[in-house]
Amino acid sequence: MKIENLGEFGLIDKLNQILPIDDKDVIVGYSDDCACVKVGNDLLLFTVDIQVEGSHFIKEKINPKDLGWKLSTSNVSDIVSCGGKPRWALVSLALPKDLDYEFIKGVYEGIKEAQDYYGFFTIGGNVSSSKQLMIDMSMVGQTDIFVGRDKARVGDFVYISSNLGLSKAGLELILMDKDSYEDFEKKLIEKHYRPKARIDLLENVKKSSSCIDISDGLVSDLGHVSKRSKVKIVIEKEKLPIDNNLKIFCQKYNKDPYQYILYSGEEYELALTSDKDLDLIKIGYIEEGEGVYLKTQEKLEKLDDKGFRHF
Amino acid sequence: MKIENLGEFGLIDKLNQILPIDDKDVIVGYSDDCACVKVGNDLLLFTVDIQVEGSHFIKEKINPKDLGWKLSTSNVSDIVSCGGKPRWALVSLALPKDLDYEFIKGVYEGIKEAQDYYGFFTIGGNVSSSKQLMIDMSMVGQTDIFVGRDKARVGDFVYISSNLGLSKAGLELILMDKDSYEDFEKKLIEKHYRPKARIDLLENVKKSSSCIDISDGLVSDLGHVSKRSKVKIVIEKEKLPIDNNLKIFCQKYNKDPYQYILYSGEEYELALTSDKDLDLIKIGYIEEGEGVYLKTQEKLEKLDDKGFRHF
Repeated sequence: MKIENLGEFGLIDKLNQILPIDDKDVIVGYSDDCACVKVGNDLLLFTVDIQVEGSHFIKEKINPKDLGWKLSTSNVSDIVSCGGKPRWALVSLALPKDLDYEFIKGVYEGIKEAQDYYGFFTIGGNVSSSKQLMIDMSMVGQTDIFVGRDKARVGDFVYISSNLGLSKAGLELILMDKDSYEDFEKKLIEKHYRPKARIDLLENVKKSSSCIDISDGLVSDLGHVSKRSKVKIVIEKEKLPIDNNLKIFCQKYNKDPYQYILYSGEEYELALTSDKDLDLIKIGYIEEGEGVYLKTQEKLEKLDDKGFRHF
Repeated sequence: MKIENLGEFGLIDKLNQILPIDDKDVIVGYSDDCACVKVGNDLLLFTVDIQVEGSHFIKEKINPKDLGWKLSTSNVSDIVSCGGKPRWALVSLALPKDLDYEFIKGVYEGIKEAQDYYGFFTIGGNVSSSKQLMIDMSMVGQTDIFVGRDKARVGDFVYISSNLGLSKAGLELILMDKDSYEDFEKKLIEKHYRPKARIDLLENVKKSSSCIDISDGLVSDLGHVSKRSKVKIVIEKEKLPIDNNLKIFCQKYNKDPYQYILYSGEEYELALTSDKDLDLIKIGYIEEGEGVYLKTQEKLEKLDDKGFRHF
């Protein structure tokens, strides 16, 4: 059996079963954006995210500073979505011997920008040789309360932290490899290369019953919340804002903006649930049941999970 | 400038300078087997180590369980050499799509064996697709005292935890690719594939002024202690024990056992310094000065660092 036949989540499920967790200090293991452990009176969060050449980025197309920024952001976003502040990171490098020093220096300068913006420090790491360039970052966060995926409740509202869909549009523009780009296109590309984890929303996260960061796509990520919380999530189509640059993009290239809003990954925005009034974009509500649905006037349509998968 | 021209340690030095650490909770960053941070009244240790196909192992030659064991051991060894107990690990997988599930399952079974032996739990991870197979593990340890490389003192003795040189002999035997192996050869190969981190010696580590695990080779690793502690380390050749299987190997293949004892990496044994009498193998002493020396009767010879480097 090849792993591609198991699918990414099938593989993860099977592997995690080989390593059951039996430790009273582990509050959350696997199954969420971060693992969470108790150390004295503190809760620590752990996550890890990798950037692989060819899978996550094309070396000739990416500015190495953007790569360092994005790697940091993807980790910080996991920490923030669980309610924590990023504290410390380890960087594990697998590098081809003939790599230009300037490239990896640029990656580190991007990490430095991210450290200064998010407030964490890289404190260790490892270097190894490889044929394929990979940069793996593990991160430790600290919090006083863990916000996970499993406590969305019937009666909660569903919120998002910003307009969605921009990262996918930005990636498509990059892949068009045009000689020049219009201003609105540059802004979409910028959103793909320089996403910002929503560390500014930590207080909102802590007031939420559940939170997840949008890395695979809104429907896919809300699907995780639905499954783990055992609830039905209804998105009201008319409440989904369409970003102005995305609107121009969809008009120019004859695309449906909702395909971007619902399925764009690597947004690093947050989807939150709460029965409180949060100063965020309210896009739906939680009911009894299961699955993620889109409500259009009086039609209710179950949405397929078309999120990004490695296998 | 290609990174291979900088050398592994040159590269690491330059990169770490881009990310200075300014955090009062960080007790030790970079520069040791583990980073160490203070969380409440606890000291936590962080390390990361990777296994890259082609650089660290040959997929067709290694039993995947041994790979999982070795990856775990290399991390545990870093934690133990700083005086800590391993607690939690994250596993980051970069896998080719056509990889057989049985292979990665075997790796996880090897990690499970290591978890049961060393007493830690894997609590999270990540999966990504790649062309080259890589398994990266980051580990968290816990301790009440940090034992580093920088506190070896003049007047201390130098100890090792066991006979050395076996892993290098084992690797050379594996690479001979023989149809059959003699019993002593099988034992050397076993030591290469199934090294044991010396978690049984934690009490000795805590009584030591410095400790390092032998992953690059005795001379190379004592070189780190010498440099960081600003002392001269003298190894007395006559006190270096020659393992019986290594002796037979060297006779059969006409090799000098001291080239193995002094330079074999991936031993995961410990080199410790202390002014106390430890129940370990005493091989030398610390003097004022710098560098690592081999003392033969009355001749004192400075040893070159010929440890393994990725670049």
